[in-house]
Amino acid sequence: MGTTYLELKGLSAAQVRAAIRSGDYAGHTAGLGAGCLQANVVIMPEAHALDFMRFCQRNPKPCPLTGVSDTGNPMMQTMGHDIDIRRDVPAYNIYRDGALSESVTDIASLWQEDMVAFALGCSFTFEHAVQAAGISLWHIQNNTTVPMFRTSIDTVPAGRFSGPMVVSMRAIPEGRVDEVTRISRLYPLAHGAPVHVGDPGKIGIADIARPDWGDPAPIGPGEVPVFWACGVTPQVAVETAKLPLCITHKPGHMLIADVAEDAEVPVIRPQK
Amino acid sequence: MGTTYLELKGLSAAQVRAAIRSGDYAGHTAGLGAGCLQANVVIMPEAHALDFMRFCQRNPKPCPLTGVSDTGNPMMQTMGHDIDIRRDVPAYNIYRDGALSESVTDIASLWQEDMVAFALGCSFTFEHAVQAAGISLWHIQNNTTVPMFRTSIDTVPAGRFSGPMVVSMRAIPEGRVDEVTRISRLYPLAHGAPVHVGDPGKIGIADIARPDWGDPAPIGPGEVPVFWACGVTPQVAVETAKLPLCITHKPGHMLIADVAEDAEVPVIRPQK
Repeated sequence: MGTTYLELKGLSAAQVRAAIRSGDYAGHTAGLGAGCLQANVVIMPEAHALDFMRFCQRNPKPCPLTGVSDTGNPMMQTMGHDIDIRRDVPAYNIYRDGALSESVTDIASLWQEDMVAFALGCSFTFEHAVQAAGISLWHIQNNTTVPMFRTSIDTVPAGRFSGPMVVSMRAIPEGRVDEVTRISRLYPLAHGAPVHVGDPGKIGIADIARPDWGDPAPIGPGEVPVFWACGVTPQVAVETAKLPLCITHKPGHMLIADVAEDAEVPVIRPQK
Repeated sequence: MGTTYLELKGLSAAQVRAAIRSGDYAGHTAGLGAGCLQANVVIMPEAHALDFMRFCQRNPKPCPLTGVSDTGNPMMQTMGHDIDIRRDVPAYNIYRDGALSESVTDIASLWQEDMVAFALGCSFTFEHAVQAAGISLWHIQNNTTVPMFRTSIDTVPAGRFSGPMVVSMRAIPEGRVDEVTRISRLYPLAHGAPVHVGDPGKIGIADIARPDWGDPAPIGPGEVPVFWACGVTPQVAVETAKLPLCITHKPGHMLIADVAEDAEVPVIRPQK
């Protein structure tokens, strides 16, 4: 790796993507391409794409669609001026028959003429807005990964896609839960308002100290756990669907688009 | 017609749909099923459905998707507990090869095993919110249809679907444009914030007094024309696509869902 995280900090989304595309950077993207939308990525053959889009439409809080490629075209034309989904994500997970097979930094050799790439919004956008309101988030302050949990809330199925909703947890001062709810609801493409506040047992979480993904985070005095729908949900749905081949970003290693993270609509007009 | 508009006023969405399904009512739906989401309807063969969903994702302001059926299943399961899209819309327009062929009140005989039904949000939701803020809307006060115009703004194409964005115009007091913008942006499933404010010529409208659809509406002293993306846009895109068969609702004759019109997410869990 020729380029470090610190060297990329403060550069534009296009500059960060250039370093990723050239193979100079394959690390995580939190805090990079400031102000630009970051997205989860799911790539699959067209035969399953309509059902996956239906799954996203029916579960918009965990799966907020921000972009869909044309079949066989690796350019995410509506999210940036030169985004090649085969090379511009720092790292990818390859799933075969629903099982993680390998992680790679470039999928050009795996791309097929029948593939469709999907981009889904992530929580960074509303986290920035919450922090801007003066509410600190423990996992960011402590440089850990937000705790994520499998819940007893079922997603609304579509075709082969189904499974539990996965949530992320942030501890919020009790007196500011309403404010955080109001703020996050303004960002429907970043999971929107919380799906649950308070008792973790009510949504099937047995032990708040043992997340299924990410790192544990404490709930301080006067704080309540607040749960948001999480972008790991489509990853679980894709595993459940057992597609012969499906490619996702590697968690934390997101697509950085040119679209502003607080844009009302995450679409730019493709260049002719 | 056994039932009049006034008899349906104040009844629940399910009761209004029952009158429609039985053939007792085939009129317009403005003001019916109070508090419930009303939606534009587009039905087409599965072969075109993925491109149409891409078109909606790329043009979310004119085409905010609120529901998609499973292929061949006429029940709009995520928008209500018993919505049969073949019978529960008061009137339908049938397009053959892109041209309006006939209007009917029931499409059971036209339904095919490969059909997919789409529901798209409409402007009623944000109009209610704007009125609740004490801003009156001329076309509602005067019981006319909002004026709609073809613009020089192109939609972002997907497959065969393309064409100009259609907008609706409402005259707003100059001092309240910001407020109306803020309010309508809260409803992304009802076309969101305006796409243009002021000079109609800038978006290719030659004569504000001659709408392409609907009735003319005056712009009073101290008012400015404000333009929102309009649900006629997908209808024009569907005509442009020249599908062998495509079915839409008849303008003004909408699907009334059980989902609340101000719901964050227009999805209810299907009953098992």
